[in-house]
Amino acid sequence: MNTESMVHLVGAGPGDPDLLTVKALRLLQNADVVVYDRLVSDAILDLIPPGVSRIAVGKAPGRHSLPQDRINELLVSLSRAGRTVVRLKGGDPYIFGRGGEEAQHLAQHRIAFDMVPGITAASACSAYAGIPLTYRGLSSGVRFVTGHCRADRPLDLDWRGLADADTTLVVYMGLANIDQVRSKLIDAGLNPTTPAAAVENGTTGRQRRCLTTLDRLPDEVQKAGFQSPVMVVIGRVVALAETLDWFEPQLRAPAATAGGRQLGHG
Amino acid sequence: MNTESMVHLVGAGPGDPDLLTVKALRLLQNADVVVYDRLVSDAILDLIPPGVSRIAVGKAPGRHSLPQDRINELLVSLSRAGRTVVRLKGGDPYIFGRGGEEAQHLAQHRIAFDMVPGITAASACSAYAGIPLTYRGLSSGVRFVTGHCRADRPLDLDWRGLADADTTLVVYMGLANIDQVRSKLIDAGLNPTTPAAAVENGTTGRQRRCLTTLDRLPDEVQKAGFQSPVMVVIGRVVALAETLDWFEPQLRAPAATAGGRQLGHG
Repeated sequence: MNTESMVHLVGAGPGDPDLLTVKALRLLQNADVVVYDRLVSDAILDLIPPGVSRIAVGKAPGRHSLPQDRINELLVSLSRAGRTVVRLKGGDPYIFGRGGEEAQHLAQHRIAFDMVPGITAASACSAYAGIPLTYRGLSSGVRFVTGHCRADRPLDLDWRGLADADTTLVVYMGLANIDQVRSKLIDAGLNPTTPAAAVENGTTGRQRRCLTTLDRLPDEVQKAGFQSPVMVVIGRVVALAETLDWFEPQLRAPAATAGGRQLGHG
Repeated sequence: MNTESMVHLVGAGPGDPDLLTVKALRLLQNADVVVYDRLVSDAILDLIPPGVSRIAVGKAPGRHSLPQDRINELLVSLSRAGRTVVRLKGGDPYIFGRGGEEAQHLAQHRIAFDMVPGITAASACSAYAGIPLTYRGLSSGVRFVTGHCRADRPLDLDWRGLADADTTLVVYMGLANIDQVRSKLIDAGLNPTTPAAAVENGTTGRQRRCLTTLDRLPDEVQKAGFQSPVMVVIGRVVALAETLDWFEPQLRAPAATAGGRQLGHG
């Protein structure tokens, strides 16, 4: 047994490989084996050198994937076999990533690990969609929840606390239960005309934004045919998104002008 | 005028240069001028090549710094002079970083810009302090507020909404008003024995954690002599921090053993 083997729990960020951390990139290039989720983008997997083993462990929506306890066991057995393991997860492992469960399993089995945070989807999508999560006079804080819950169960959230006009609300996996999020927030007192956005495929070349209001959000998202992954942002800051847009104009710009000015401004 | 000039609004992350994004590092290496806040660490400033201009614009606590409107004007004038500008901010510019105000000023003046998110302090400190921000059965979401407010004014926050046992609460600039945060949360119904942590100089070689409960947090932090920057985390997930600690044992490990096993585990 190689006593130097170790498990690196690594956040891959939202998809754009430019948003990997320097440490994540270095660990990928020096791993023996990379254990990754389906949310990790192909562009990031392409950075893994040939010869490094890759193990896909899930999790596509609606498809079976390796259960969490099997993933935990896999990490332990790879480490005990002396392999340097990168456990690569989309976003940040400690924000809706179940990284804590894997870290706890490793700690209980006395496997050395470290944790490399990644750019979480809320940071990434806000930057690429032109939505500051906090802004003086518009939002004094931000809150992250997930729209996902166990099948056939209602979302069990503190709706009254969430219906706070001074806080930006970010809903991960925002397409799931979007009707319920809308109606519960309005019932709890949030103004139906509160600005709201959905961001599909955030930070990728296929990013689309839907900018609307809370009451119209489910209809507009359906009309636009949005598919997962979708991040939902609700709050006054969303009103800035038209002005602060920079990424989608870059995507739409023909290569010729993109080389000149790079952006549609000016 | 060089029409290709552009302002890159860039998050530097929490301090550890390993947590810069790949894009941030590349932009720093290709900038004409870097305009940076005092929260950006020396280790990151050391990555700026010689010959690149550096302009420090603030903001040390209690010291005067360039007012926001002067910073905005500086970015415009540098860009109009044809310089490629990196505006470097600690953490993530869109989370308590006033990045939105700078982006809006640039957009209004038709200056091309893009936005590079950084690892926000909540992600960074949770990873390096062993505290998952969400965890099944312990925390279904996370909320970020700032403990900072204008001098001599009470913190104006929705304490009842914040006193939610199912949500992890992260307080940026957590040393300011820590007594008030404690008493308001307890008055609003949060259990005084809720686990709470303060993390000083998170992710740096000088990181220290204080693990306690909400009711004892101000006293313990004072007893330990914590100084800014301090991140406060309140919620059931803090109870995992002893088990999931990996970074501070690395710091304490003598170089010899650090080269062997790298961690205190096993």
